Amino acid sequence: MSVNLPVTSQLAVVPGLACGAAEANIRYRDRLDVAVFTCAPGSVAGGVFTQNSYRAAPVLVAERHCGDVRGLVVNSGNANAATGDEGLADAIHMCELLAQHLDSDPHDVLPFSTGVIGERLPMDRMAKGIEDAVTAASEEGWLDTAHAIMTTDTAPKGVSLSFDVQGSTIAATGIVKGSGMIRPDMATMLAFLGTDAGFTVEVASQLAFDLAERSFNRLTIDGDTSTNDAFVVIGTNQSELPLIEKVHSNAYRQLLFRLTPLVEELAMRTVRDGEGATKFVTVRVNGGRTERECLDVAYTVAHSPLIKTAIFAGDPNWGRFCMAIGRAGIRDLDPNRVDLFLDDVCIARHGKIAPTYVEAAAAKVMASDEFTVDIRLGRGNATERVWTSDLSYDYVKINAEYRT
Amino acid sequence: MSVNLPVTSQLAVVPGLACGAAEANIRYRDRLDVAVFTCAPGSVAGGVFTQNSYRAAPVLVAERHCGDVRGLVVNSGNANAATGDEGLADAIHMCELLAQHLDSDPHDVLPFSTGVIGERLPMDRMAKGIEDAVTAASEEGWLDTAHAIMTTDTAPKGVSLSFDVQGSTIAATGIVKGSGMIRPDMATMLAFLGTDAGFTVEVASQLAFDLAERSFNRLTIDGDTSTNDAFVVIGTNQSELPLIEKVHSNAYRQLLFRLTPLVEELAMRTVRDGEGATKFVTVRVNGGRTERECLDVAYTVAHSPLIKTAIFAGDPNWGRFCMAIGRAGIRDLDPNRVDLFLDDVCIARHGKIAPTYVEAAAAKVMASDEFTVDIRLGRGNATERVWTSDLSYDYVKINAEYRT
Repeated sequence: MSVNLPVTSQLAVVPGLACGAAEANIRYRDRLDVAVFTCAPGSVAGGVFTQNSYRAAPVLVAERHCGDVRGLVVNSGNANAATGDEGLADAIHMCELLAQHLDSDPHDVLPFSTGVIGERLPMDRMAKGIEDAVTAASEEGWLDTAHAIMTTDTAPKGVSLSFDVQGSTIAATGIVKGSGMIRPDMATMLAFLGTDAGFTVEVASQLAFDLAERSFNRLTIDGDTSTNDAFVVIGTNQSELPLIEKVHSNAYRQLLFRLTPLVEELAMRTVRDGEGATKFVTVRVNGGRTERECLDVAYTVAHSPLIKTAIFAGDPNWGRFCMAIGRAGIRDLDPNRVDLFLDDVCIARHGKIAPTYVEAAAAKVMASDEFTVDIRLGRGNATERVWTSDLSYDYVKINAEYRT
Repeated sequence: MSVNLPVTSQLAVVPGLACGAAEANIRYRDRLDVAVFTCAPGSVAGGVFTQNSYRAAPVLVAERHCGDVRGLVVNSGNANAATGDEGLADAIHMCELLAQHLDSDPHDVLPFSTGVIGERLPMDRMAKGIEDAVTAASEEGWLDTAHAIMTTDTAPKGVSLSFDVQGSTIAATGIVKGSGMIRPDMATMLAFLGTDAGFTVEVASQLAFDLAERSFNRLTIDGDTSTNDAFVVIGTNQSELPLIEKVHSNAYRQLLFRLTPLVEELAMRTVRDGEGATKFVTVRVNGGRTERECLDVAYTVAHSPLIKTAIFAGDPNWGRFCMAIGRAGIRDLDPNRVDLFLDDVCIARHGKIAPTYVEAAAAKVMASDEFTVDIRLGRGNATERVWTSDLSYDYVKINAEYRT
């Protein structure tokens, strides 16, 4: 089940970046489950990683290894989380295995894992998988790689873009996996973005942060955040664009601006492929005093089980929106200044039902599979928006029956 | 559907307090839906009310009218919320209607409403309902009153206790309605506790707060909080116990101590009657530095849709508990010091799977309809616990199909 998820059939080459995948039987047979990226000398990687206190071993290692990068290794089926010192040693060993093939320093390799928690990685099968994935790797390997990182995703998700920055053509391809915000057993969201632009380590980190703030940090499926979440940006510096050395330079801002639609699209596709999703909903909040308070309202609405079930039912039960706005913890919020719209249907104005409101109009909006909840707080100029899905029988089914 | 919900068949008299109910057709026919309490002169009421910014009109009025009290009037079927100034006038008019019958000041009457949001109260039917309920009122009227305040509760919920404080026998009876933490359409939790102990207004407020902190503020069904939540304590001062005038007196502490099991039982019954509940779960967190951080962990666990669905499935998917503990926002939490138990089965110790762990033992605990999730943070001496239920197909069904 997914909501208008575009098919990913072709992904464009990013000069300087090869990738490929192999079947290593990490947990299941007959599926791609180990992937590698190999990066041209001069490549740099920066990332953002889960804030969960239980950070998985590969997250700890990948974060430390950001910077100059020659390779990335990813497996699905086993998250290598809650595995103690042994798990940490396994994550480091994954780097060493790929580094041997690349004749590089293991510190220039980043490891990622996604899958069940609390089990040791099968390192013998991992070694064979990495070897096979290196053999398979090519600049055309993105689609296989997008397949290999999937867990319960219903389809691979990737986007390519080509654009100009200061007269140079830049290629960018990104892939993402994840269909709950968190999957601690088939853990998590992983996203990889490659571009042939070049930048310093500091710029890479800032770029990953700024892009995530516009995309992956603005979606929620169930409000849970995993032990393994990671989003990594890799720049190979193979384009004609001069190396970007400063975070606030014009080139940086242009690259950020151009890459934003790509990560927004990846983030939206993650929600479209959300667990049990039957609706794709944008929650837009404006008129807040700060972006923080807009986000607080948007997330409270997007996380409310009562709203999510009403969205599933297509029921314009607007009292539930009032309830959620009211419990978002906004100081001195005056309900008498709040307006609520579903798409362009005004439901409540100044805190009570709009004189023009006709339930049939709101029901029509909510019966569609995509719509916007538009909340106007009437106390400032800040704006935010998040994407979310509904809470369906299938969400319960997927999560109640997942391991059985 | 409910989880081991005891039948409420008899509720004890509280000297000085009469109550009764009537069928007023507020929203549905052939059911009790208006109730009144009448209180002997010298009675005092204090309460705690929802913190939601969208507070319903009756909440605003009831809070203002706390203090000397001669009557309470409650209706189900219509929450009188998001109804603007007109709704406020209706809530005040409810007080006036009961005050006429009691020959009292309307400021000594507290109004409560629970039901659909955004609709005006039918004040003509309300007037007749109040008249009939006054006629019906008697010291034996608690069970009818418990029926009248129900919305989608599966059964009335009430508890009586009798105990000694400083040599005087005290009677106490409490009733509660609510089967989601919030029902913004059939809104909310309402609880009323009457006792023949006597106390000042200040003591009444503190008593309501202290009791709620031990009971209603420690439960969650879906994490939503409504526009109409209220818990009111009424003391009639008809017992032989001298009036309690100081919050930190021995008599206050003894009364609080004796009433606590009553409100705990009401709160637990609310969870047992939770929407779609098939399990009753206690989440106990100890070893925190502060009670606040224990509560943050407990609520994060109790609100996690992934944990709630695993509980529904009886699946000891312990990675989900780690995930939730890790995202509770506890600064410097060291996962390597955290232990996790289900009842007495140790699942994880020092942040990874316990050497003695056998999944069958945990599965057996989770297959039962009541158990305790016991989380030991290993960083301090604070302890907290909350009660919660699971997330079942029926929760989705009830909330998706409620209005249709």
